[in-house]
Amino acid sequence: MSFYITILGSSAALPTSTRFPTAHALNLHERFFLIDCGEGTQIQLRKYRVKFGKINHVFISHMHGDHVFGIFGLITTFSLLGRKHDLHIYAHNEFKEVIDFYLEKFARDLTYNIIFHVIPAKKDKKIFENDKLSVLAFPLKHRIPCSGFIFREKKAEKNIKKEAIEKYKLSIAQVQEVKRGRDHVMGNGNIIPNEELTLPDYKKRAYAYCTDTKFRPEIKKYLHEVDILYHEATFAEKDKKLANITYHSTAKQAATIAKEANIGKLLVGHFSSRYKDTSIFEKECREIFPDSYAVNDGDTFEIPRRRVDGTS
Amino acid sequence: MSFYITILGSSAALPTSTRFPTAHALNLHERFFLIDCGEGTQIQLRKYRVKFGKINHVFISHMHGDHVFGIFGLITTFSLLGRKHDLHIYAHNEFKEVIDFYLEKFARDLTYNIIFHVIPAKKDKKIFENDKLSVLAFPLKHRIPCSGFIFREKKAEKNIKKEAIEKYKLSIAQVQEVKRGRDHVMGNGNIIPNEELTLPDYKKRAYAYCTDTKFRPEIKKYLHEVDILYHEATFAEKDKKLANITYHSTAKQAATIAKEANIGKLLVGHFSSRYKDTSIFEKECREIFPDSYAVNDGDTFEIPRRRVDGTS
Repeated sequence: MSFYITILGSSAALPTSTRFPTAHALNLHERFFLIDCGEGTQIQLRKYRVKFGKINHVFISHMHGDHVFGIFGLITTFSLLGRKHDLHIYAHNEFKEVIDFYLEKFARDLTYNIIFHVIPAKKDKKIFENDKLSVLAFPLKHRIPCSGFIFREKKAEKNIKKEAIEKYKLSIAQVQEVKRGRDHVMGNGNIIPNEELTLPDYKKRAYAYCTDTKFRPEIKKYLHEVDILYHEATFAEKDKKLANITYHSTAKQAATIAKEANIGKLLVGHFSSRYKDTSIFEKECREIFPDSYAVNDGDTFEIPRRRVDGTS
Repeated sequence: MSFYITILGSSAALPTSTRFPTAHALNLHERFFLIDCGEGTQIQLRKYRVKFGKINHVFISHMHGDHVFGIFGLITTFSLLGRKHDLHIYAHNEFKEVIDFYLEKFARDLTYNIIFHVIPAKKDKKIFENDKLSVLAFPLKHRIPCSGFIFREKKAEKNIKKEAIEKYKLSIAQVQEVKRGRDHVMGNGNIIPNEELTLPDYKKRAYAYCTDTKFRPEIKKYLHEVDILYHEATFAEKDKKLANITYHSTAKQAATIAKEANIGKLLVGHFSSRYKDTSIFEKECREIFPDSYAVNDGDTFEIPRRRVDGTS
């Protein structure tokens, strides 16, 4: 059961020849969730072999061009490919008018439907849920309404030990009960505890995405048990004033949040094009939070599935 | 005095991992003219080292996404780079509303002005002129209003022979007169013909850009003395029916126009992503017009400066 993130774009507002504007693809159990959609996202999706047809949900953090200008081409491309199934777009209210304008001017005959979901600007909200995953949006602090997202895997069905089925001669119905967490009551009334019949649970995996934002330590409350946190680091600490003026963060600030929230691994990106060498971001982060990484376009990060006892 | 074309994108509506949507950059005497602006154009401009600050004029052939979705990011980027000088956009009337909407929603505080020039949809018109160049727009035949463009160099000032200055002891004022094409009248009334004093004229160079369009042989009348013709070839001749339905051309049709108009070199592009190998286009063209080339992103084509007698 896959859970990995592909970085489609890692630049801030000015893309470079090697860094596209922001977009991430989350592969959860071979379903793809697109997070932001900067210019050229569809080209990056092809380059990094993310299957277009498996993207059904697009989450937009905020309405700045470097996070959204790729959505127009992507919507058109889906239609040219003959897509039939709905595309869900999650964004702040203001973005609906943009999508509507674009559809009227450029894409009146889409082969599929777009369903727009409004993200609240000022409070947190679970904006998506299916049997595998839930997505929480929560406010960041930028020049316009902006939200972070947490993608949390749900608790999976328990795996039953094969030898237990044999030993207790469990019927299909009994197996289903045990998978749901019930103990097994034998014919003679003896009770076999569920833990004896099943493997330890899988740890629920979580990915958090926070861009663009000023240093906002209060977001820690959302980040419990997050395996990977992507946090913007547009500037290095030496340019903290610029970060403050432009409502962005420094690498040190991103690492401070990672440390205080006790997350697993920190990814930083959204680098200002003024930095030719991004190792400065990694260095700065690692002084505070060792498991930090400055991302590049095309990087993929997996959160491996592990049981609560650490076995795989 | 440079005159060359860089192909920034050569795909049709569906970009691939190696072909961006349509855009060309024309470098004329180190001034850059952008022709169409598909998604990702600003990334291609960086990759192929076209200087952003020297682009003052953008010509839009028609309002389909694969020819325009890069302009939003480019306009923003110019502003982030602190541009001060005007940007001129030439497009059909309908596109003005799109630019205005974009500016209102995404770019209220541009550092420079955008000046919009309307291209007539149904007739030809000289839409730009300076001391070096004129640009003619003329109607193509697509599903929506669409224009081709011809960029024609103007006649340059004559070059005077150094030995003539010496021989006839010409003053600066006399040199200027001779450069303007006048004969030289000596003190004794003798007339030295201008041709004796000057080098042969440079041939005026011309580049024609025709995409997207159905086969439209009547455009030949615009293509006299064109050195390079870029003509779309979305399909190969075997898919002529598709070309006809979608208002596009085949490679054979592009080559037919090149041959009948007697242009210098034919470039074809805007390839449908259904063709994995574009050598089919070149083969098909060359059977009719040998000097044909199927372009790739990043290709650059120079029109060398030559005098009318063939010397350089």
